[in-house]
Amino acid sequence: MIAARNLTVGCRKLLSTSAYTVRSHTCDELNASNKNEKVSVMGWLSHKRMDRFFVLRDAYGSVQAKIQENSELKQLLKELPYESVIRVDGTVVDRGENRNNKMKTGDIEINVEQLTVLNKASVNIPMLPDVKSNEKTRLKYRYIDLRSDKLQRYRLQLEDDILVSLYRALRIRSEFVHNLRKFLVEKSGFVDVDTPTLFRRTPGGATEFVVPAPPPNHGMAYSLPQSPQQFKQLLMVGGIDRYFQIARCYRDEGSKGDRQPEFTQVDVEMSFTTQEGVMQLIEDMILSAWPESLIHLKPKSPFPRISYSEAMTKYGIDKPDMRVSWQIEDVKTNIFNFLKKNDGDKIRVIVCRGAGKTPISNSTKDEWKRLIQMNENGRNFAICHPSHKTWFKSLKNEKILEEFGLTEEDALVVCWGESDGVYWTLGQLRNYVAEICGLRSKNVVTAHWVVDFPLFSFEEGHLVSTHHPFTAPVDKDKEMLYDEDNDRLLQITGQHYDLVINGVEMGGGSIRIENSEMQRHVLKILSEPTEEMEHLLNALSHGAPPHGGFALGLDRFVAMLTSDGNPLTPVRDVIAFPKTKNGKDLMSDAPTTLSKKQLERFVKQNLNELIKFIFPDTVSHCYRMIRKADSFYCSVC
Amino acid sequence: MIAARNLTVGCRKLLSTSAYTVRSHTCDELNASNKNEKVSVMGWLSHKRMDRFFVLRDAYGSVQAKIQENSELKQLLKELPYESVIRVDGTVVDRGENRNNKMKTGDIEINVEQLTVLNKASVNIPMLPDVKSNEKTRLKYRYIDLRSDKLQRYRLQLEDDILVSLYRALRIRSEFVHNLRKFLVEKSGFVDVDTPTLFRRTPGGATEFVVPAPPPNHGMAYSLPQSPQQFKQLLMVGGIDRYFQIARCYRDEGSKGDRQPEFTQVDVEMSFTTQEGVMQLIEDMILSAWPESLIHLKPKSPFPRISYSEAMTKYGIDKPDMRVSWQIEDVKTNIFNFLKKNDGDKIRVIVCRGAGKTPISNSTKDEWKRLIQMNENGRNFAICHPSHKTWFKSLKNEKILEEFGLTEEDALVVCWGESDGVYWTLGQLRNYVAEICGLRSKNVVTAHWVVDFPLFSFEEGHLVSTHHPFTAPVDKDKEMLYDEDNDRLLQITGQHYDLVINGVEMGGGSIRIENSEMQRHVLKILSEPTEEMEHLLNALSHGAPPHGGFALGLDRFVAMLTSDGNPLTPVRDVIAFPKTKNGKDLMSDAPTTLSKKQLERFVKQNLNELIKFIFPDTVSHCYRMIRKADSFYCSVC
Repeated sequence: MIAARNLTVGCRKLLSTSAYTVRSHTCDELNASNKNEKVSVMGWLSHKRMDRFFVLRDAYGSVQAKIQENSELKQLLKELPYESVIRVDGTVVDRGENRNNKMKTGDIEINVEQLTVLNKASVNIPMLPDVKSNEKTRLKYRYIDLRSDKLQRYRLQLEDDILVSLYRALRIRSEFVHNLRKFLVEKSGFVDVDTPTLFRRTPGGATEFVVPAPPPNHGMAYSLPQSPQQFKQLLMVGGIDRYFQIARCYRDEGSKGDRQPEFTQVDVEMSFTTQEGVMQLIEDMILSAWPESLIHLKPKSPFPRISYSEAMTKYGIDKPDMRVSWQIEDVKTNIFNFLKKNDGDKIRVIVCRGAGKTPISNSTKDEWKRLIQMNENGRNFAICHPSHKTWFKSLKNEKILEEFGLTEEDALVVCWGESDGVYWTLGQLRNYVAEICGLRSKNVVTAHWVVDFPLFSFEEGHLVSTHHPFTAPVDKDKEMLYDEDNDRLLQITGQHYDLVINGVEMGGGSIRIENSEMQRHVLKILSEPTEEMEHLLNALSHGAPPHGGFALGLDRFVAMLTSDGNPLTPVRDVIAFPKTKNGKDLMSDAPTTLSKKQLERFVKQNLNELIKFIFPDTVSHCYRMIRKADSFYCSVC
Repeated sequence: MIAARNLTVGCRKLLSTSAYTVRSHTCDELNASNKNEKVSVMGWLSHKRMDRFFVLRDAYGSVQAKIQENSELKQLLKELPYESVIRVDGTVVDRGENRNNKMKTGDIEINVEQLTVLNKASVNIPMLPDVKSNEKTRLKYRYIDLRSDKLQRYRLQLEDDILVSLYRALRIRSEFVHNLRKFLVEKSGFVDVDTPTLFRRTPGGATEFVVPAPPPNHGMAYSLPQSPQQFKQLLMVGGIDRYFQIARCYRDEGSKGDRQPEFTQVDVEMSFTTQEGVMQLIEDMILSAWPESLIHLKPKSPFPRISYSEAMTKYGIDKPDMRVSWQIEDVKTNIFNFLKKNDGDKIRVIVCRGAGKTPISNSTKDEWKRLIQMNENGRNFAICHPSHKTWFKSLKNEKILEEFGLTEEDALVVCWGESDGVYWTLGQLRNYVAEICGLRSKNVVTAHWVVDFPLFSFEEGHLVSTHHPFTAPVDKDKEMLYDEDNDRLLQITGQHYDLVINGVEMGGGSIRIENSEMQRHVLKILSEPTEEMEHLLNALSHGAPPHGGFALGLDRFVAMLTSDGNPLTPVRDVIAFPKTKNGKDLMSDAPTTLSKKQLERFVKQNLNELIKFIFPDTVSHCYRMIRKADSFYCSVC
């Protein structure tokens, strides 16, 4: 709490935040030492009292001002709407016994000599009462939301409370990014390189945003990249051996959870390194950049390493939340023999210490069922929980209590079925039970690395890259790439590493394939066409150093920081102007319909393709009949 | 020259550029003090001699290595293609009398104990002989161009010469940007805020790139912004009173001179400031961020201020190149009475001291004529130049020589006609003559501000913004906005300021209109629709502080820095992966044709609009006949 409040002034040490402006001070910095000083302060009109007293608020804090009893300014103040922007010229005076201890500047006030209205606010200003206001309204008036969060923080400070405000989030974000840069540039010799966002279509992967190209590139389009992956590898080939970029990335995925169509990643790549080298760099980078005001959340180095298979066996998920200690356990006895199982079914449990204290409602049960149904394979589970007597009974509770040392304060999750499904289900339930029972450690950031992922996975009958096709296999498995046996290929371990914080994948990276021939072979295994990747394959054959890197999801990371680690703030709360789940910017009303001019340009550039597309092959003779030059006419008319 | 060379190692002071890698040293840092040390260095194979000696090169420099007389490694080296990536493990030894004074590491060499081929280069590597190679080839193999520039710099250092390499440019760019950020964040309390690049169409202005939006936004599109102008103003309304961003911007202009479809600008905005406040901030920012290795080019503060009208009268251009002192002069006598003039024609001259020393060829004369024809209004000019006897004579040279104190070393440009045309022509010729005669000061950076621009200009019968519709008029002219008289409106001075360096507009800014009603009025004067700007107009009415800012063209600025001020490097030489004038990325072959899937998606989302567009109104009954559901059929078939 204190730390968060410090932030208001924390970043401003030694800064001249009034330099280059016409104010003499910011509203927060006046105190008894300024007594008798002539000051000029400016900001928003926040409170009025008795037509004489008012509070002026700016980006940094607030201060009380007082108009003289007999001044004509009283009338001006009376009629002035809240949130008008004003300038106050006056003299600082001691409030003496009337001081306000709850206000940082409460020792003093300003005797107003001049009050200038810089910009009168409209009277029906939609100032929002609460950050929990209707989210659509907040997004539409984002610019006020920014300011009102500050207002609220000011108010809440009076009550010694704190709020995760957008305003605060943006400042923490700026500080964190600046610290990152200082570490990379000043301490570690990295070069900040901008790479293009108007790029080419890449084979495979998710849908990309398409940008029709200007003339003379008729019928052609750029694609907005999902990451600077290819560019950073090309920079390594070019000898920029320590590269980074805070890169804008794009994914055209429509509405998928808490994702934005454009997002920011801290993109790092290095030559002549190893998996361990990159992981150490990223740890040092994150810890060195950790905002001072959030020091109580800073995790210790080194972050523990856990293998993918251990994560799956112990936590049923590749991004385990270590704020809960519960692990998946085998059942050594035949205590669950009464359950209806198929041959080969596995049975595993999680003992949820402390989870018995929270009653489990029917709606919670429904949520469990929904969670389970998310996975395509049906599987069985049961919960032993003090508040569900029937389940308890059917599971022969006495013996079970004894077997797992359960008390009335605990719960037990039992799951049986096919191996993968059992682990998956328990992984989901582990998170869910911890969440609803509030049993995750609070104000804690647990960071660790998940390593040793399989290079390939099997999806819908096809071999796919577990991460992306540029990841190198570990040295000892390189030979196996040339086995023409899917089972063998699936056993190959990739040099990939994920950074998981509080159960969220914050970023990932890998050592890349630097050998052109091996890269070509991997694309062949994946049935990816190589024609569209020839520039990269070529580059790799022209003296590519061994290299690897990492990408940190900045939005997610800042969301984690600003929410004191728990619960996770939605990323749109740490982005100045976010879009809704449907990709809409409610403030400016983007996207818009295509203007006639825009459509005309697109059609003219893509006429041949459009015609072929709109008129199916079977009626192509019809198309021939009615097309004349670049326009269309009905051959019948 | 020396400064540039220092850069190779300059930025690395106190850095651990080998941290997190498997090398012990970079190639440039070994010297006699490392004698007898075991080292591991890695890089590219650059030179071979006698099958035993070779030079290893990395991003920082190079070092010689020596294989033992009887080693099997000799055969390996012999067969290894140049530019292969290798690792050398060995011991540093003193070269004694054989030391190479021209090489930074020339005192020592490495006795090779182990030579590991990390990635063999293809033998037909298209290593480029010269940066003056065919530019298309260089762009296609950009990743090699990056590396070969280093190679060349290494070679050129041997000859004590210097080359503006892309590699060097990218490092200077990174250093400059980092210094900018340090000034803004650490010294001046600015907040770095990312703003969206998927934005809405904005009225007026240039063509914007269009990005079809994902479902469910059928028939809709984002636009890529030309600058974060609206967002930065909205942030001011939101109380982020000191904002900056190194912003990616876009313009869909096709091939227009030395411009890229995407470019980077340093975008700054501040509340409660003045024109002078912003100009001082930007000066301090630029000077504080000036790269150490280019200190000899650093201009002095304050940059001189010159008004638009003075710039036009003295230099005939709003971005005068101050590396030449020549000014446009009035002719007080009737010495040019013999010229054929119309009533009201003006006559002005420029005395080009020193320009007589350079003979002026016929092709140069043709270039002059072409320059003049660029402007729509015909006008007359003549040059008095020692190498053109006839002109000299026809202009009655004796008297003229006397009048302007001309010697055989000087030239005189005379121009007559309508006022605007005369100044424009002389402005163009001033630059051109200085250029072809090589009379601009070299290795000098002259920076100054051009201020007091007219708020409106007249173009093709319409009133337009001289810069953009958000610029505020100066206080004393605000009333004039409400005159319904174009002549009066054209007299209004705007609070706009351009930063001009060596005759190039490096950036511009303004104090913005913070009053919603005035902004609406200005849009009305400009006949711009306000419907698409309601979000901004609304924001201004909700307590917008007075504010102003600036945008610095980063690519241009770095081009100026890296070219020692003169001549200006093309911006594509300071961008890692630039596009050609036609917007093509020759390396990855972007843009590409739309894939069937991409086209299908676009058509499905825009079907109604496309149909209306493709089928003109006159044959709409035909369209009705053949459209069934989402497909088309010939009603005749």
